[in-house]
Amino acid sequence: MTEPMARQIVLASRPKGPPTAANFRLEEIPMPQLPRGGLLLRVLYLSLDPYMRGRMDDAKSYAKSVDIGEPMRGESVCEVVQSDRPGYAKGDIVLAHTGWRTHAAWDGPDLRKLDPKQAPVTAGLGVLGMPGFTAYSGLYVLGKPKAGETVVVAAASGPVGSLVGQLAKMVGARAVGIAGGAPKCRYVVDELGFDACIDHHGPGMAEQLAAACPKGIDVYFENVAGAVWQAVLPLLNTYARVPVCGLIAYYNMAAPPAGPNLLPATMRAVLTKSLTLRGFINTEFVAEHYADFLRIVSAGIADGRIRYREDITDGFENAPAAFMGLLEGKNFGKALVRVAA
Amino acid sequence: MTEPMARQIVLASRPKGPPTAANFRLEEIPMPQLPRGGLLLRVLYLSLDPYMRGRMDDAKSYAKSVDIGEPMRGESVCEVVQSDRPGYAKGDIVLAHTGWRTHAAWDGPDLRKLDPKQAPVTAGLGVLGMPGFTAYSGLYVLGKPKAGETVVVAAASGPVGSLVGQLAKMVGARAVGIAGGAPKCRYVVDELGFDACIDHHGPGMAEQLAAACPKGIDVYFENVAGAVWQAVLPLLNTYARVPVCGLIAYYNMAAPPAGPNLLPATMRAVLTKSLTLRGFINTEFVAEHYADFLRIVSAGIADGRIRYREDITDGFENAPAAFMGLLEGKNFGKALVRVAA
Repeated sequence: MTEPMARQIVLASRPKGPPTAANFRLEEIPMPQLPRGGLLLRVLYLSLDPYMRGRMDDAKSYAKSVDIGEPMRGESVCEVVQSDRPGYAKGDIVLAHTGWRTHAAWDGPDLRKLDPKQAPVTAGLGVLGMPGFTAYSGLYVLGKPKAGETVVVAAASGPVGSLVGQLAKMVGARAVGIAGGAPKCRYVVDELGFDACIDHHGPGMAEQLAAACPKGIDVYFENVAGAVWQAVLPLLNTYARVPVCGLIAYYNMAAPPAGPNLLPATMRAVLTKSLTLRGFINTEFVAEHYADFLRIVSAGIADGRIRYREDITDGFENAPAAFMGLLEGKNFGKALVRVAA
Repeated sequence: MTEPMARQIVLASRPKGPPTAANFRLEEIPMPQLPRGGLLLRVLYLSLDPYMRGRMDDAKSYAKSVDIGEPMRGESVCEVVQSDRPGYAKGDIVLAHTGWRTHAAWDGPDLRKLDPKQAPVTAGLGVLGMPGFTAYSGLYVLGKPKAGETVVVAAASGPVGSLVGQLAKMVGARAVGIAGGAPKCRYVVDELGFDACIDHHGPGMAEQLAAACPKGIDVYFENVAGAVWQAVLPLLNTYARVPVCGLIAYYNMAAPPAGPNLLPATMRAVLTKSLTLRGFINTEFVAEHYADFLRIVSAGIADGRIRYREDITDGFENAPAAFMGLLEGKNFGKALVRVAA
């Protein structure tokens, strides 16, 4: 009789530029054992997020790099298989930072339990989880849009951007999205209720963005950088706020890009328009704002004012390919891998 | 009998890169007449400030460009020669935005009167005027240094930088300056009381700055950009604040600089260290903070805790040369032109 095995995906080598399949390695390992006082978890859904690209580099960041041979890090929706912890029972659904694994022995601090009757459990990895709180805290705590102001966000069909625009509309601001391709743009306007959405695959992105922002831009929620930032820069109004939560255009750069040097133009705009650029990680705001976030966004989902979309890849072994697609913008909605649901 | 004449210096042509003498033209004009309800002013001291370089370009900024043929703009200490306005008498000393002129007919709003018994009148163009308030508001309103934190400022012997460091010391922060040449650095440490000052003319500026900031940098008061910013960037701590009040290294750039493109590295630091970059013009804070500024800095000057230095050029006709020197850092202290005192 063969023992049941678990699987994990480790960092096999560091990417230079965009990751390739060779940077990942799928491993079979013995099934982890229930730890004393802990839980044995079975991963149902694994979350894929752009920040994971940064963890693959050996560079100082806000979080430690993944070591070679170590499982990729990440959050997942899990089912409790065995419990030696009071308050947790077999069959409970929890959010855990398991990394890219099919099973995990959890002896860490308490986990966030999910109630499948309140919202689909996968929302806990998206609009009701880290991406959602990133949108909420960046927009409401740092961006502070007022009624009548204009908010711009890229990756507008994704889990962060889609909520940024919907939260902007909830305070009476104009919401302008940027997304890749006509189907995503249609979804952003028709389903999510943005005022406009610019297709960055099409020609004249900068001109279209200017036309969609006749009163300039008051809040630009930065999650992509690159060409979008260059198009946004001349449209920013005096005292505009730029919460910076991601720079996906840079994540795959292997070396400093060739010229021209675009830093002076950005710094000149910061000076002459009294801009505020503020980098942030959502964890900074959890203690003060997470409860409000859950309350407001849960209510918005329940009454239909907040909508979201998921892009689910089947099969744990397909996580690397889905992740590489995410970095190229191939997903349409929150990227998830169905591992065992 | 010849009529008495006034003089003015106008923008003769726009500079490409550093200004040259040919960009300015000294003109003799008829003496202005006392306007009804206004004042006739004689300029005693003209202020020279880096921001004036920006006004010479035909580019959108926070203030209108100087037109070709129009006098250079700027602030001066003036004596009232004739008055048709209640509350102002011949011999009063006032601050006025006269531009580069020897005399001015003033029919604008009220002026700030200076009391020569309270402080030398030239301080109203420096530590007790616009440069001083730029230092005060940028540091205290935006930078918010706490005791034990490290504040770094360049052009540390100048009117803004010197006050930034002294105000930092007053709240118990460590003050590290950057200045050009050993005499300025000695002055910054020995006379102004900074904890350290790095000579950017010397070799190894980045290494020396790192050594002078063993606990990193919490507030970087940006007034120069360029190589100093590149040296500061790796030393900034998480949640560091960067008030941006000037970019003197860029002011003389005729065209976008060649590569490498330094924008990604700056934006990565903004993101991974949760930095705040905030451009500002001191006028934003006048209504709320100017009275506190005058009270605190006047008291500091009176009791010797705040010191300052002036670099006075004699002769109105020498203003262009003194201004070109200022942009190259040749001044040592607040740059002024003695016109008639």
